[in-house]
Amino acid sequence: MGIIVQKFGGTSVADVEKIHNVAKAVIKEKENGNDVVVVVSAMGHTTDYLIKLAKEVTKNPDSREMDMLLSTGEQVSIALLAMAIQSHGYKAISMNGQQVGIITECIHSKARIVDIKTEKLQKYINDGNIIVVAGFQGVTPDGEITTLGRGGSDTSAVAIAAALKADRCDIYTDVEGVYATDPRIVPNIQKTDVISYEEMLELARVGANVLHPRSVETAKQFNVPLRVRSSFKLDNLGTLIIGVDNMEIYKPVAGVAADSSQVRILLSQLPDIPGTAAKVFGALAKNNISVDMIIQSLASNGKNSIAFTVDADDLDSALNIINNVKNEFNSGEILIDENISKVSIVGAGMVDRPGIAADMFRALADNNINIKMISTSEIKISCLVEKDKANNAIKALCKEFGLESEEMAVVKGDLPNV
Amino acid sequence: MGIIVQKFGGTSVADVEKIHNVAKAVIKEKENGNDVVVVVSAMGHTTDYLIKLAKEVTKNPDSREMDMLLSTGEQVSIALLAMAIQSHGYKAISMNGQQVGIITECIHSKARIVDIKTEKLQKYINDGNIIVVAGFQGVTPDGEITTLGRGGSDTSAVAIAAALKADRCDIYTDVEGVYATDPRIVPNIQKTDVISYEEMLELARVGANVLHPRSVETAKQFNVPLRVRSSFKLDNLGTLIIGVDNMEIYKPVAGVAADSSQVRILLSQLPDIPGTAAKVFGALAKNNISVDMIIQSLASNGKNSIAFTVDADDLDSALNIINNVKNEFNSGEILIDENISKVSIVGAGMVDRPGIAADMFRALADNNINIKMISTSEIKISCLVEKDKANNAIKALCKEFGLESEEMAVVKGDLPNV
Repeated sequence: MGIIVQKFGGTSVADVEKIHNVAKAVIKEKENGNDVVVVVSAMGHTTDYLIKLAKEVTKNPDSREMDMLLSTGEQVSIALLAMAIQSHGYKAISMNGQQVGIITECIHSKARIVDIKTEKLQKYINDGNIIVVAGFQGVTPDGEITTLGRGGSDTSAVAIAAALKADRCDIYTDVEGVYATDPRIVPNIQKTDVISYEEMLELARVGANVLHPRSVETAKQFNVPLRVRSSFKLDNLGTLIIGVDNMEIYKPVAGVAADSSQVRILLSQLPDIPGTAAKVFGALAKNNISVDMIIQSLASNGKNSIAFTVDADDLDSALNIINNVKNEFNSGEILIDENISKVSIVGAGMVDRPGIAADMFRALADNNINIKMISTSEIKISCLVEKDKANNAIKALCKEFGLESEEMAVVKGDLPNV
Repeated sequence: MGIIVQKFGGTSVADVEKIHNVAKAVIKEKENGNDVVVVVSAMGHTTDYLIKLAKEVTKNPDSREMDMLLSTGEQVSIALLAMAIQSHGYKAISMNGQQVGIITECIHSKARIVDIKTEKLQKYINDGNIIVVAGFQGVTPDGEITTLGRGGSDTSAVAIAAALKADRCDIYTDVEGVYATDPRIVPNIQKTDVISYEEMLELARVGANVLHPRSVETAKQFNVPLRVRSSFKLDNLGTLIIGVDNMEIYKPVAGVAADSSQVRILLSQLPDIPGTAAKVFGALAKNNISVDMIIQSLASNGKNSIAFTVDADDLDSALNIINNVKNEFNSGEILIDENISKVSIVGAGMVDRPGIAADMFRALADNNINIKMISTSEIKISCLVEKDKANNAIKALCKEFGLESEEMAVVKGDLPNV
């Protein structure tokens, strides 16, 4: 007996029939003896439709008015879902962001939650209601309507779970859980039963998965157990995401991810004097350019070289900056490599098991895949490889670390981009 | 220089082009040097669509959840209209019922406004904004979303005008103003330039006009000058509706209306003793049956008869009740006449001009229209005539009292049912 927060995305409530299916999933959890708070997104393509309307009115709609507009999408869903739950004979009540008291900063279109009031929620729960809450939206202390931006509804659900000290937050999606890599590349990939927040964050950041990092970070911060599960197979428990301290067993490698959105810049023949790296990366940071991997070579003949990767979208501005730095040193050469993918293995167990890195490099070599650059962290090892070798690298690494399954992964609908 | 409240209905904001037209009408008023608060309904058929969705979810949707659902319609309109006004270079800000503080009773689907907060409205006005307010909706002191029922958006506009002590409330509609009768019956009917609240109420109640009585009553109560005008012809001033005390000149007959929804019940051969009428109408009132015209004939031979009209929908239950009364008196006979229309002339000037009633009866007689029953009030004379004579009666009376025009009335779209 406890509180379970459930979250259903837009495709799960896209039409009346699906809304009734969600109602049944909600009622099933209630029948298990739990109190249930369910967070929903706008129906299907509602948000896209509203954005299109706004763009027809004006090319640059005001972000305050966009939030006023878009927040109606979730309000429609919560009313209909509450009606559907009631029609099955259960008490339900819908609440929008303002009514709950999901307090956010006053930054329209990408506000962050600063507080969630629980008094009214708890009162309605105590009265035996299933509570249906509008995701993605909040309200400032002044009563301005805000939206939370990408990953907003997941974040709403996790934050409400944290505020209510819920037993668990279940995120229902189109997929059956978290896979060790993208099932479009390795169709017989294993579904992960348990994974840590940290591993999930590394996998999500490099583009392989189903949850927005923001919601995982919030869950990690408040230690809310998260479950990613299928809205089509309610008996399937999906993937549980918890703190690494609470995990009893874990594989050394939890997943494999690839990121092809970066380019590598190599700055060679720099003077090997103190402050060189600080100058290069200070200039990039000042211009808001995020740098991912960085390698500085060993110096020889008083010269040095620095290689780093940036997002391909930032290439032009990065080159401008680097050119200035080069001119300042009055030496150096710039080389660009756009033909790269970053392939990473992620696992909280790596730290205890020496030899994982060596296994990775050997598996790539056996498959004739050259490594252009390497970086490592506590729970991740990343290698740059040629772009067209990325999928082969993923396949080889999944095989090497035993992540394949007897069964095919089940993917309904499109995998979301996170 | 003052505050003008404008109200645009659903057909005026039915698509993006129309929303821009409304924006221009709003800006025109602002350019006249006035502060403007504009109240809008949901776009076109949005409300119907949402009701349809709810009915698909469940046959009997909960009224609280219906209000949660339907209130999104106006919220979409206000956001889009604010964007449209901004796109023309003017400051605008949208506010839903909760944000304004349109406080209502907690009666879902037909709440009445009990208070309107003006602090935030006035602050935004003082900052130079055009304020776009969601009509039809309010909020209870507990933060529950309510809707106002039929005529709700008009009532919102009038109530806001009253709260802000606005100079005027302009109700934009499909028609060019208030006509002296239904233009579908008398196509060359005069548009009325000025009419009193009381006359407007009598005309609206009998089915001839464009404003819900509720909004006219609110305007009367707070003495808010109302203007009914066309959203298609912004230069046309439409019809001004004000207190009879403020009218300098008025015609003896402002309008002619007909109502074919009633039936007449005649109860004859009743004992002429005190309390007979009280018994009859007390029994009807106890059963919530509204009675319109009542005539008690002069007694003869210790017997009396009472005739009255009720709504045709109430006929069966009225007959049940009247049968019981008849049995109690152990005498009497019941006659029903369904072939009736009530034709009324309305005018605040009647009271000063004797002979208006005689003119009415003569005009009907000249056109071979028999009068079945007559009732009079301060500003109205009504005659029951045969149903198929009603339109002829209206035409004859419009001619008699000089209400025809050289021009045809302009009616775009359907006349609303009020």
